[in-house]
Amino acid sequence: MAPPPDHTKPHYELPASLKPAGPSGTDILARERARASFSSDELSLYLFGKEALDKQDAIVAILENDSVLDKSSVYYYGRSDLFRYALRKEKRLQQLQIEHNWSREDVMLADSLCDVPGPFNLNRTMFITTLEKMATDEQRKLYLEPAYANQITGCYAQTELGHGSNVQGLETTATWIEQDKEFEIHSPSLTASKWWIGGLGRSADHAILMAQLIVNGKRKGPHPFIIQIRDVQTREILPGRLIGDIGPKAGYGGVDNGFMLFDHVRVPHVAMLAKLARLDPDSGLYHPPANPALNYGTLSWVRANIVQQASKVHMRAVTVAIRYCSIRRQFQDRDHPLFENGKPLETPVLDYTSVQIRVFPLIARAFAFHYTAKYMFELYHRNQINMDKGDLSLLADMHATSSGLKSYTSIASAQSIEDCRRACGGHGFSLAAGLPTQYANYLPTARYLFKTMRALKAGNAPKEDTVTTDYMRRYLRARQERASIKYTGDLLDPLFFGRAFGHRAAYLTERALALRDEQKRSWNELLVDLFNMSKAHSEYVIVRQFAFAILSDDDLNRRPAIRSVMQQIFLLYACHTMVEEGADFFASGFIDSEQFALLRATVQKTMAELRPNAVALVDAFKLPDYLLNSALGRSDGKVYESLFDFALREPLNAVKWNTDVNDLQTLDIERAERAKL
Amino acid sequence: MAPPPDHTKPHYELPASLKPAGPSGTDILARERARASFSSDELSLYLFGKEALDKQDAIVAILENDSVLDKSSVYYYGRSDLFRYALRKEKRLQQLQIEHNWSREDVMLADSLCDVPGPFNLNRTMFITTLEKMATDEQRKLYLEPAYANQITGCYAQTELGHGSNVQGLETTATWIEQDKEFEIHSPSLTASKWWIGGLGRSADHAILMAQLIVNGKRKGPHPFIIQIRDVQTREILPGRLIGDIGPKAGYGGVDNGFMLFDHVRVPHVAMLAKLARLDPDSGLYHPPANPALNYGTLSWVRANIVQQASKVHMRAVTVAIRYCSIRRQFQDRDHPLFENGKPLETPVLDYTSVQIRVFPLIARAFAFHYTAKYMFELYHRNQINMDKGDLSLLADMHATSSGLKSYTSIASAQSIEDCRRACGGHGFSLAAGLPTQYANYLPTARYLFKTMRALKAGNAPKEDTVTTDYMRRYLRARQERASIKYTGDLLDPLFFGRAFGHRAAYLTERALALRDEQKRSWNELLVDLFNMSKAHSEYVIVRQFAFAILSDDDLNRRPAIRSVMQQIFLLYACHTMVEEGADFFASGFIDSEQFALLRATVQKTMAELRPNAVALVDAFKLPDYLLNSALGRSDGKVYESLFDFALREPLNAVKWNTDVNDLQTLDIERAERAKL
Repeated sequence: MAPPPDHTKPHYELPASLKPAGPSGTDILARERARASFSSDELSLYLFGKEALDKQDAIVAILENDSVLDKSSVYYYGRSDLFRYALRKEKRLQQLQIEHNWSREDVMLADSLCDVPGPFNLNRTMFITTLEKMATDEQRKLYLEPAYANQITGCYAQTELGHGSNVQGLETTATWIEQDKEFEIHSPSLTASKWWIGGLGRSADHAILMAQLIVNGKRKGPHPFIIQIRDVQTREILPGRLIGDIGPKAGYGGVDNGFMLFDHVRVPHVAMLAKLARLDPDSGLYHPPANPALNYGTLSWVRANIVQQASKVHMRAVTVAIRYCSIRRQFQDRDHPLFENGKPLETPVLDYTSVQIRVFPLIARAFAFHYTAKYMFELYHRNQINMDKGDLSLLADMHATSSGLKSYTSIASAQSIEDCRRACGGHGFSLAAGLPTQYANYLPTARYLFKTMRALKAGNAPKEDTVTTDYMRRYLRARQERASIKYTGDLLDPLFFGRAFGHRAAYLTERALALRDEQKRSWNELLVDLFNMSKAHSEYVIVRQFAFAILSDDDLNRRPAIRSVMQQIFLLYACHTMVEEGADFFASGFIDSEQFALLRATVQKTMAELRPNAVALVDAFKLPDYLLNSALGRSDGKVYESLFDFALREPLNAVKWNTDVNDLQTLDIERAERAKL
Repeated sequence: MAPPPDHTKPHYELPASLKPAGPSGTDILARERARASFSSDELSLYLFGKEALDKQDAIVAILENDSVLDKSSVYYYGRSDLFRYALRKEKRLQQLQIEHNWSREDVMLADSLCDVPGPFNLNRTMFITTLEKMATDEQRKLYLEPAYANQITGCYAQTELGHGSNVQGLETTATWIEQDKEFEIHSPSLTASKWWIGGLGRSADHAILMAQLIVNGKRKGPHPFIIQIRDVQTREILPGRLIGDIGPKAGYGGVDNGFMLFDHVRVPHVAMLAKLARLDPDSGLYHPPANPALNYGTLSWVRANIVQQASKVHMRAVTVAIRYCSIRRQFQDRDHPLFENGKPLETPVLDYTSVQIRVFPLIARAFAFHYTAKYMFELYHRNQINMDKGDLSLLADMHATSSGLKSYTSIASAQSIEDCRRACGGHGFSLAAGLPTQYANYLPTARYLFKTMRALKAGNAPKEDTVTTDYMRRYLRARQERASIKYTGDLLDPLFFGRAFGHRAAYLTERALALRDEQKRSWNELLVDLFNMSKAHSEYVIVRQFAFAILSDDDLNRRPAIRSVMQQIFLLYACHTMVEEGADFFASGFIDSEQFALLRATVQKTMAELRPNAVALVDAFKLPDYLLNSALGRSDGKVYESLFDFALREPLNAVKWNTDVNDLQTLDIERAERAKL
């Protein structure tokens, strides 16, 4: 079967005379670069060092001229073609490794530059690394050497359908059968199925399997085994294993994340990776591993890599956002309009402070994480030296700190990518609000709030009160108002929250107005403040209407059971929002530390009260299963059966895939066989 | 050409004996439902009313039994098959409308239940609505009646490649040619191309076009025109228009978002929609529209709908998250382990407060937005009655408030979907951290922080200081420490931020420890606090290492230009994080309102200083174009040319699509023609 389809040719001609209006993107970037206060080459050198930069240049030069690794078609691919592309990419990388004598780090760098996650990723990392760490000399010869030579391809099978990172909870068993000196591998239930395992679905022929070791009827906890799952030549799945791709997911289409069930499969004693824990086949005695704390060192090193990766992710997201936002123009700046050749020019969106506040802190994070990762590597090395001297004093702090940093920076990365997309507006492929929404919607709101506040201060209030004059008037009469809440019971008056949110909205408006009218700040300098006061106004309206419904909706008051739940929900909404926006309420002096703690405790309390009602609440939304079309959200609760159903219908499961590194053309074996007929 | 492929059949058999371990999802949901304190049917009735619920039931019953609208294959489709599916769906909905005598609202409800956005969406909404509002009687006859009868299909072409929601900035021109009594439509540049227009790419035959009206050389601003773009029978694009699909995007694969360029195309006088503004063809005189404020009413109605939609989006996201999180189990609760038939049972993740805090506030938001939308509809009706009496007093407030609410709730929706996905963990298809990461990473960190704090308080400190004992010791000696910053200059000492973040991390730890040790709170009740203190610890480490780099990195100190930028970046990171986490710093009493304002002002100031260095900073990251593979982030700045290049290679652009409502089988005209050969 041929390579994946080629989408490099246009289907249309564009008139060559058409150019973008205004200065070209190329010119704009040149001007931007010219006005920097430092040399970006020097900064690169400082950040990464000459060796790493040279290495990257050399590898990019190879990749970008390789026809197999050409990227111009990937965005058009559906799942099957993307997988086809990724499999060819993996094979090609293995060929290039030999051709250019690349180290494993070089291959990983090349793979990250290719940037299409593929089926061999975990073969290169988890499969080989685990063998290096856990295999005995005999096992290294049997498995690691063929893996280095690309003769076998592996995956790392830990997660199960019903069990994520809780390794202790795994269900798959490996029972030692004393009389035969063999292990029996078995999946006792549907949720015991291995799930999400990268490379397992269609390509790997071996697996590192995490399973509960059972010796003499006693559980010894999860241990690693190495198990062959497919015939290396024919790609047939071996007997007793049920294996396939898990089906559609968001992203990662080039990876065959797989499932695997075992039906009483026997494997020899050598299958248990025995460098740390081991089972004596003659005596049947189990020997547990030495101090697991010694493993913490390696973990810290892995985590330092994750933090460094988070820094890279930030760099990549802001590279796209900064370049594009300096080229993209929208609206005229109200205070500083631009002109070119006498014609009005829209302002680059990067000049708007509302865009800067989204993107610049992410540049800052990229650097902050960079230094943190550097420190973590240093700490790792310092600790290794200490440990060699028997000094474990750094271990606990390093373990705890690196663990928190890993999570913190990973979450930050996911959010940053999202933030950058939004900053790019429509072309960032975002459906959510970008600059346009802010400008077109928050500005009129802010302008109106200013106008109303000015009128009230000048005594020119409109005769009839509106939502807005209502809370502003109250605030102007009682700027010094303080929340009087002390106990949970004080929070039962819904109108308290109306007063609180009104006080905050008016405070923010008055403060921003002073910056505008007294300190003569430009609109652009105020965009962040305008956004905040506009948001506070919206939250006031929402809280107020919710409070009114609780207090005076007759229909609701006739339904006491529902009214009481609705009151809890109101309390949760109001307290949670006050906690989230806590700084505003502190800044205006409206609440103090004790009251803030009370609000937080109330959030906790209302959540506990809502817990028994949670499922019934969402049932009340009456969203038909036809709409949801969701394995996870089905009204009948058949989550795991349904996830399997999706998996079993995945089209990739209908064909066999050839992983032979020397064969870049034949990817889909059955089709190829059909073609021969 | 046949319908899109069918993926309803499994490629494998699963042994029927395999069941999920533990209680079944169906049983779990039944138990959950049994313990609710209210009737969910009654709540539905209260929320939506009987009529709406009955209507939904009736429509769902039709849809879920219609083979064309079957959803079981959609998740497997690539772009082309999804478009094929969506086009068939659109045709089928139009057939069902006639068959069941549905109103336009019914069709829209049915479409939202189908939940695969398709090419006719904007035909039904913007195209028809604009004609209803803006067309003269003559134009209604010419265009609206055929549109109602599904004889023509339209789109709404406003956005341009270089211009988002800034309508005033549109480049496409419509010049009145007095001598011929015609308009000449023209795209003067590449960025003038219409872009992102739903339904334009491959299906619509007519377009409402927003273009700059030019009369006698004078610009009259953007006005709506109706223009035929394709032959209704042959689907050929008419001369002078260059039209196609814009190519790959994230999501919305069933919609043919399109581009369109005009090359001096002449259209008759009747093309200008003339109910509001009009041009007298005889005198050539232009008559502007009446008071545009009158249009605000309609806008407010549209916005109330958006807020209601936001409520629905929240309902849908939490329906999936709540049901799944009540079934999914992970880890044993440390304080309250569960057992079933004597065997330990993992805890449903919905019992963890760290999951509740993500999901329950979103339930609360669903209701809060529901009441807000209700209020907005009421306000709209009240205002309409007032306006009929000539009373415009409500208009300004309604316009400003609804504008802010629209943005606020849309942003909230996008975030909520994301939050719910994360709460679902791996199976929520999220790459970001779910509960597993929190449990596996934050808990050890929190446990270690508790241990260290307890030891220090008991005087059992380790001999050698670590990162952690360092700041905790300082805090315990000086709990009452207050920030001494008053002017910008006071922020130039990087160590100030180390002290600030250390004080906060220690404060949060001591506070949570008191809840644990003195008030005997369970781990589960404390999960949110543990997360916060763990996060604060991570941020302390990051700020500290960044500060050290600024102070003592010799390599950096030898590069003054770079050091000075790095100092700005540090200041931005530290101040921005303090502002984001402001409530913590207020709660511990470390900062006051004046200092908070100083930090915010410093964020603003450092952003302004960084602006000229922005592009050079990201250039320094040295991310090759080969890696970025991004039209927006290219190092040469050719953003718009590159976006077009993606569009022109889109495979959908290689075929013609048949929109004939009566022909559900022939979708792809060229292939069908080839098949005839």
